[in-house]
Amino acid sequence: MELVWLIPVAGTAAALYAAWLAYDVLRRDQGTEAMQDVSSMIFEGAMAFLRRQYGTIALLAVVTAVIIGVIVGAVSEGVKEILYDGDAITYGSVEVSQWQEGLLTAIAFLVGAACSGLAGYIGMYISVRSNSRTASAATRSLKEAITVALRGGAVSGFLVVALSLIGVSTIFLIYSEALGNPKAIAPFLIVGFGFGASFVALFAQLGGGIYTKAADVGADLVGKVEAGIPEDDPRNAAVIADLVGDNVGDCAGRGADLFESMSAENIGAMILGVAIYAVTGDLEWIIFPLVLRSFGILATIVGLHSVPLFAKDDANQDPMTPLNRGYYIVSALSVVGLFIATKVMLGDEWYWFFFCGLVGIATGIAFVYITQYYTSGSWRPVREIADASLTGPATTIITGTAVGLETTAATALAIGTALVASFALGSEADIPGVGGFTTGVFGTAVATMGMLMSAAYVLSMDTFGPITDNAGGITEMSGAPESARHITDALDSVGNTTKALTKGYAVASAGLAAFLLFSAYLDKVKERIGYPLNEELPIDLSNVDVFAGGLIGGMLVFLFAGLAIRAVGSAAGDIIEEVRRQFREDPGIMAGTSRPDYGRAVDITARAALRAMILPGLLAVGLPITVGLVFRFTRSEELVLGDRVIDDPSGWLAVSGMLMIGTIVGILLATFFNNVGGAWDNAKKYIEAGNLSVDGKTQGKGTDAHKAAVVGDTVGDPFKDTAGPSLHVLIKLLATITLVMAPLFIP
Amino acid sequence: MELVWLIPVAGTAAALYAAWLAYDVLRRDQGTEAMQDVSSMIFEGAMAFLRRQYGTIALLAVVTAVIIGVIVGAVSEGVKEILYDGDAITYGSVEVSQWQEGLLTAIAFLVGAACSGLAGYIGMYISVRSNSRTASAATRSLKEAITVALRGGAVSGFLVVALSLIGVSTIFLIYSEALGNPKAIAPFLIVGFGFGASFVALFAQLGGGIYTKAADVGADLVGKVEAGIPEDDPRNAAVIADLVGDNVGDCAGRGADLFESMSAENIGAMILGVAIYAVTGDLEWIIFPLVLRSFGILATIVGLHSVPLFAKDDANQDPMTPLNRGYYIVSALSVVGLFIATKVMLGDEWYWFFFCGLVGIATGIAFVYITQYYTSGSWRPVREIADASLTGPATTIITGTAVGLETTAATALAIGTALVASFALGSEADIPGVGGFTTGVFGTAVATMGMLMSAAYVLSMDTFGPITDNAGGITEMSGAPESARHITDALDSVGNTTKALTKGYAVASAGLAAFLLFSAYLDKVKERIGYPLNEELPIDLSNVDVFAGGLIGGMLVFLFAGLAIRAVGSAAGDIIEEVRRQFREDPGIMAGTSRPDYGRAVDITARAALRAMILPGLLAVGLPITVGLVFRFTRSEELVLGDRVIDDPSGWLAVSGMLMIGTIVGILLATFFNNVGGAWDNAKKYIEAGNLSVDGKTQGKGTDAHKAAVVGDTVGDPFKDTAGPSLHVLIKLLATITLVMAPLFIP
Repeated sequence: MELVWLIPVAGTAAALYAAWLAYDVLRRDQGTEAMQDVSSMIFEGAMAFLRRQYGTIALLAVVTAVIIGVIVGAVSEGVKEILYDGDAITYGSVEVSQWQEGLLTAIAFLVGAACSGLAGYIGMYISVRSNSRTASAATRSLKEAITVALRGGAVSGFLVVALSLIGVSTIFLIYSEALGNPKAIAPFLIVGFGFGASFVALFAQLGGGIYTKAADVGADLVGKVEAGIPEDDPRNAAVIADLVGDNVGDCAGRGADLFESMSAENIGAMILGVAIYAVTGDLEWIIFPLVLRSFGILATIVGLHSVPLFAKDDANQDPMTPLNRGYYIVSALSVVGLFIATKVMLGDEWYWFFFCGLVGIATGIAFVYITQYYTSGSWRPVREIADASLTGPATTIITGTAVGLETTAATALAIGTALVASFALGSEADIPGVGGFTTGVFGTAVATMGMLMSAAYVLSMDTFGPITDNAGGITEMSGAPESARHITDALDSVGNTTKALTKGYAVASAGLAAFLLFSAYLDKVKERIGYPLNEELPIDLSNVDVFAGGLIGGMLVFLFAGLAIRAVGSAAGDIIEEVRRQFREDPGIMAGTSRPDYGRAVDITARAALRAMILPGLLAVGLPITVGLVFRFTRSEELVLGDRVIDDPSGWLAVSGMLMIGTIVGILLATFFNNVGGAWDNAKKYIEAGNLSVDGKTQGKGTDAHKAAVVGDTVGDPFKDTAGPSLHVLIKLLATITLVMAPLFIP
Repeated sequence: MELVWLIPVAGTAAALYAAWLAYDVLRRDQGTEAMQDVSSMIFEGAMAFLRRQYGTIALLAVVTAVIIGVIVGAVSEGVKEILYDGDAITYGSVEVSQWQEGLLTAIAFLVGAACSGLAGYIGMYISVRSNSRTASAATRSLKEAITVALRGGAVSGFLVVALSLIGVSTIFLIYSEALGNPKAIAPFLIVGFGFGASFVALFAQLGGGIYTKAADVGADLVGKVEAGIPEDDPRNAAVIADLVGDNVGDCAGRGADLFESMSAENIGAMILGVAIYAVTGDLEWIIFPLVLRSFGILATIVGLHSVPLFAKDDANQDPMTPLNRGYYIVSALSVVGLFIATKVMLGDEWYWFFFCGLVGIATGIAFVYITQYYTSGSWRPVREIADASLTGPATTIITGTAVGLETTAATALAIGTALVASFALGSEADIPGVGGFTTGVFGTAVATMGMLMSAAYVLSMDTFGPITDNAGGITEMSGAPESARHITDALDSVGNTTKALTKGYAVASAGLAAFLLFSAYLDKVKERIGYPLNEELPIDLSNVDVFAGGLIGGMLVFLFAGLAIRAVGSAAGDIIEEVRRQFREDPGIMAGTSRPDYGRAVDITARAALRAMILPGLLAVGLPITVGLVFRFTRSEELVLGDRVIDDPSGWLAVSGMLMIGTIVGILLATFFNNVGGAWDNAKKYIEAGNLSVDGKTQGKGTDAHKAAVVGDTVGDPFKDTAGPSLHVLIKLLATITLVMAPLFIP
């Protein structure tokens, strides 16, 4: 337990650093009055949406917490003491009564939900305060503009990581030390925290994703198509809603997504550590994930703070260069931290886990580059789509779909390789009394932790995206000088890249985290049915319950994505109605003599988006529970495993299949949506930049090829910003909901 | 063995009936000279393509057969006698040496490939001979036109079913009786037949699917867009290739698809029967699938022959009515046949399996209606897409995608319910010494057989599609009277429905067949590793090899679909080049004074399509083998199951995950592609029929809404006619290839 002191140190350091970053950004020059004017409208819109969104989520969360408490309290048998007799792990007397377990799980759920909401709220607050400051900095230098945008984004990144670490550590400490429960069972009591985080993430990402694309599509259709006014024209009442949308999707939504990844991964890894702790008696196996995260935070502070050192006072420098250098520093320091943490904490065979962590760090780096290859105009895939736009929108869509489907290959191979390699390395570790299967799964957990060490940095780069995007809009609308536009354009283009690579990173981390959460779910099942934690409980794919559950899990992913995409359309309809109404009732708007009511458009978009998120959200929460209950109560067979006969396993078997196969399908479909959307977007930008030509004649803006590319971009919008990111969250929600609701499926 | 005599009777009856149908169609009036002229060009093009395609496939098949023979001969340990000691199933001495097994498997592969090819060739021959005869009949009466088109299609349907039944029965008889091998091991020797059928089906469906859409897209782009001439204009050299394409995709391709479903399902069910036969000693359990298929054939002959009785001499009758009545007769007689077969053959508890078969028959009927709901203009989904086309091509694609994703829900729930219900019913059957797991899996096999009893009828309706489609084209190009057009239009529209519902039927049968083929694969693994056939061998989803294999299996489905869609684009490019060349080199074509060289365009399309199918085809064959070998040779862990320790299972575990999860992903993605393509197609037709209006003004042909709908239709073409159907075949190929290549993955 030598490094435990690092957890509060790193947590406090991260929170203080976030506070300093916020202070540093807020004290800067806010720009001209015109800039501040636009910025304050965005700010008000974003805050109004967040208040409304978190209000809805809070209501849903409280109801859900009560339901969780009652269900777990009513159907659970309480948590039993975990014993090791030198051979097998067995279970002793009940340590935590069933109603106590229900109460603690419900409280953990609320704390997880609150931490996630708090991180999202403060991060957004600073993010929408940073845009005019970035626009102002851009009138002076590239270096200053990068610094402001990145630091504004980093507030969100650090808060997310800090609140996840502090939240999980504190609740673990209270549920073990303060309540006097054995440390080996405390991880099972805090699974509610992960579910709370998933719950908020689902609605934040789904609501945010629907909002951002409904505003985008609605503003375009009613402005460009109907009224014939250009994009971002201030006469369009939906224009501010569109700028607000960038923040709620990429900042608040993705922040909640990665908050969930880290929290769920931490808790899952702690549960896996229980099986080793029960045998060895070393608490390090449970605490290790928190310590490694602490090292990641320290590494990220150094890396992030070094970025301005690499930025030159040269407006022609590629802004990606300093960001990449900072990422290398974070990765290098993470390796050092990983070395120290594994060597000090993980016993004699620590080096196997060190290698596992290296696999994870390498996977993170690989995903950053895989995503760039498929979505950047510098490579073959995007150029093929641009070429296809010469023969019209149909071939643009067909070629894009082909490219998008093909991008799943690299993703699946990279995740598969990382899993198998880290499992194989972990299973080499020889810990007396612990089987290779247990150390192997722990190895995949270490790989996931290694990958997520850089989460705060990646998230800072991600939130950099909407800040620079907004800064570009503010610069344009406020009539700032040409040189500033040049800088914000360069930053905006880099922001598109960082947003895309964060999605790749989020998919990969979801894939790795899901595998270990599944193992944690099985440990929970073992604990419930009294099966030794250190023996493998097979979930047989040729079992009809597992297969049918898997088919339904895969279907859930398709259906959820379909509903999310459909929701964008229905919410966009509401905005269009409102903008039409404003045009009709106040002719001064079109004449440019009176200002449209932006706030009302923002509010209507928010209400429509939040209404539209309810159905897919309830489906995601309700279907796993329904499947578990239906299979449990309509089927009655035995599972024979060697000498053991397990009664009525259909419920938890079907849920297992649903969870695992839903995860695989979710990874593939999310990758498809994210990449095809990014590729269409950049094919359009590639054409706009004048890179496409036929017989020596450039096919730029306004040509038929460009129009076809715009169709592709519009189709890709709800794919990459609504369906894809919501699927990452769905994958992890499946894992956390089954963890918490497991007692419902087990007789 | 009381009903065994039925197999040769039904096989002969089916072949004779097919011969009579062919005679009946060919003796009919071929229509006017103009009709015969167009028809003979289609005939020559289709036959030229088939010769070239089957030439390529034959070459690939012979090479593959040699490879199979060598591999199985070199790595297998031979097939051992199966013994039952009153408790467990064990294995005795080697009955078939390893090289003999290799030789027999290779021969079975070639016979399966040859039967599939023969059925496709003869079926196509009659199909493209029926089109002008249908056109001619349409000048006289609807009743006669339906009769000709359905009988032309039924030649293909009956040949496919008859050759599958005769092929499997004959090779089973030779490999057991003639060669003196125990009947219990013969099913393992004939798995090559299923692989041969899959192999031909893959290339037939893929090559045919690429051909048909490349010709369609190429003819449209170069004709309508570039040269500005209408669709189906005889000046367009690609026009005949387009008409040929309808036949090679829907007739030859789908025929090979269902030939494979039936053959693989027969063989898989026979392997599952071995486990019961080994205990009970009743050969009925192995022979039963062949007998049930025989009843299906007899039922179909009656049903098909009754269709003209329901057709009225009234041109306004909906042609779907007599087709549906015929289908009900087939279903009703199938129930009778099922009753007799189960009662006579399946012991005292036969009724459980009777219920399983009923589940299968009901599932077949359900899929016919589910598909109609999602792809017909009479219901909500297609109308929503039509409404979305009012706001342009982007919203048409977005709404269509949402609808397509949602259609997977009904499909997955129906397949899942059928599997669980038939398994639960089957496992109730109490056969002393045989576990509930074994009888349950056999129950799912009976459900699959029940569903496929109507295969010949469904396939006849499917081939009805291209015949009526061609008849419509011939009627138009030959200037036949308006009344004939009215009839062929009605038939063509019904043909679109029957083509769509056959795809739904094919997906469902692929899903059910895959589950039982997977069980057969596990039986083969058990036989190889010496594991009792009547005990469950768990494929643990939380095992990292299974999970990673599953991830790669799911990815294979996405990648394969992407490559298939891409192939359409590249083949279309070749046709466009050729048509352009003909316009350029002979100005008389455009002036209408000289006739374009249709044959050359057909030939170039054929060559391009066959070249384009090689890469995805090799991926489908090569990746499962590569995964099995890589996991086998790079990983070395033990699998502990109770007292048994199995060495080095990673190869076959990874392949198991790949097979099962690839199947689930394949079902979902194929459903998406088939339904979204059908829905876009019918949304366009819905608008063309004048059903869409805004403010009381009809938005028909030529409006912006129609143009947007055409974009949707064009995007959907390669989805529904290339990617979707090829995925059905991929699913089953995965199953048969792993069955045959299993020894490669097992140390």
